[in-house]
Amino acid sequence: MDVVGATTFAFVTAFGGGTLRDLLLGRTPIFWLMDPWLSITTFAIAIISFYLINRISDKLLLIPDALGLGFFSVLGATFALQMNLSLLVASLMGVVTGMFGGILRDVLCNKIPHVFKSGTELYATCSFIGTWAFIILIVFKVDTSLASWLGTFTVLGLRILAVRYRLTLPLP
Amino acid sequence: MDVVGATTFAFVTAFGGGTLRDLLLGRTPIFWLMDPWLSITTFAIAIISFYLINRISDKLLLIPDALGLGFFSVLGATFALQMNLSLLVASLMGVVTGMFGGILRDVLCNKIPHVFKSGTELYATCSFIGTWAFIILIVFKVDTSLASWLGTFTVLGLRILAVRYRLTLPLP
Amino acid sequence: MDVVGATTFAFVTAFGGGTLRDLLLGRTPIFWLMDPWLSITTFAIAIISFYLINRISDKLLLIPDALGLGFFSVLGATFALQMNLSLLVASLMGVVTGMFGGILRDVLCNKIPHVFKSGTELYATCSFIGTWAFIILIVFKVDTSLASWLGTFTVLGLRILAVRYRLTLPLP
Repeated sequence: MDVVGATTFAFVTAFGGGTLRDLLLGRTPIFWLMDPWLSITTFAIAIISFYLINRISDKLLLIPDALGLGFFSVLGATFALQMNLSLLVASLMGVVTGMFGGILRDVLCNKIPHVFKSGTELYATCSFIGTWAFIILIVFKVDTSLASWLGTFTVLGLRILAVRYRLTLPLP
Repeated sequence: MDVVGATTFAFVTAFGGGTLRDLLLGRTPIFWLMDPWLSITTFAIAIISFYLINRISDKLLLIPDALGLGFFSVLGATFALQMNLSLLVASLMGVVTGMFGGILRDVLCNKIPHVFKSGTELYATCSFIGTWAFIILIVFKVDTSLASWLGTFTVLGLRILAVRYRLTLPLP
Repeated sequence: MDVVGATTFAFVTAFGGGTLRDLLLGRTPIFWLMDPWLSITTFAIAIISFYLINRISDKLLLIPDALGLGFFSVLGATFALQMNLSLLVASLMGVVTGMFGGILRDVLCNKIPHVFKSGTELYATCSFIGTWAFIILIVFKVDTSLASWLGTFTVLGLRILAVRYRLTLPLP
């Protein structure tokens, strides 16, 4: 894959979930159209990574990936709650926002999305539980930014535990 | 595939077409965001199917699949007509709405969508003819709910005939 | 692939980029819903090509493909500029609009999109440079339709040069 491919995948992974969220909620123009610095930053990181870094071990990527999953999940739920959608829908929006970037990246690479394979450690489940933790805190009037951090770190912590202990969902 | 994958595919198949329809028409927030019971029902059916049912024969799925194709096709055309779009565009919206869920599911499974393969029995064609039957009835001021049922059953009947007699489109 | 598949791919390639552009910018209903003649023309060309033409050499497709890339790129940037988005975002919208149709077609065919593979001659790069040429001309108050033609032909010219001399991006 060349630098255009690599840059595209960085964009897709970073912006895919939020783009779907904004489309589904009708928040247009989409978020990254409004602030060029988001694109500049992603562009710069992608090009630097492509030319300077030979190979990042998958383990090193676990933490930023899980942090992104948590952050995007909480943000997705936040926007849904702001529009007075139901709590269930807000939690789904959190999970969709958290996971869609990675799914889209895998589809463009012509792979079955990693998160759908049996044998993958808990991923959507971490997002789901962390998003619900955030939503419940909001329902109980906990301060929004405190609730956001707690939700994000719940996702991060669960994901690290899932990989560490190879937790998977029960098969039928 | 684990239960998260199975649930996701149930959502994608059930909601994919209607989501694309709402996005293209600018009807946001998307339909399933407004009514959590749609998600709860789909969620429940998906989980029960995953854990309780070992294997459904493809033949058993033909009828609900064809009914869904008909129902979604007519609904897609209905919304387009309500927005005073042209009849041709309404028929395209019907076909897109009817088929997109299955296409998206196949893309996520990393398969060539079934409906695009030569040798597949008529599928898009059934949706197209049934949608036009519905549209023509509407143009002639037939009662909307009667027209909807006739359109849906036209799709269903054509699809059953196509599979029964292995009808395919002529190749060049 | 049968005629439904072929027609679908014609639609996806022709309308994919503009559809994504309209969705991201919030311009709904989408452009091809408003004018049925766009669909009729595409439909007719696709069916005629499918039944009459046995095999078009890839070389013959280079010029219309590169013209389409240039035209869609400039159009994408134009709409973004009309909404007063930043120049960088307008250039991204140009590239996305120009390339997305082909990417979506490849994804539906279950292939890795051609433009992402290393070893492919410059493609996104041609769109990017031509879109910026157009944007800079607009910034300097050059007549819009002159700027559009110059931008489109920049993309076309660069793409022909890239294929002729097998220009690719440097690998790391």
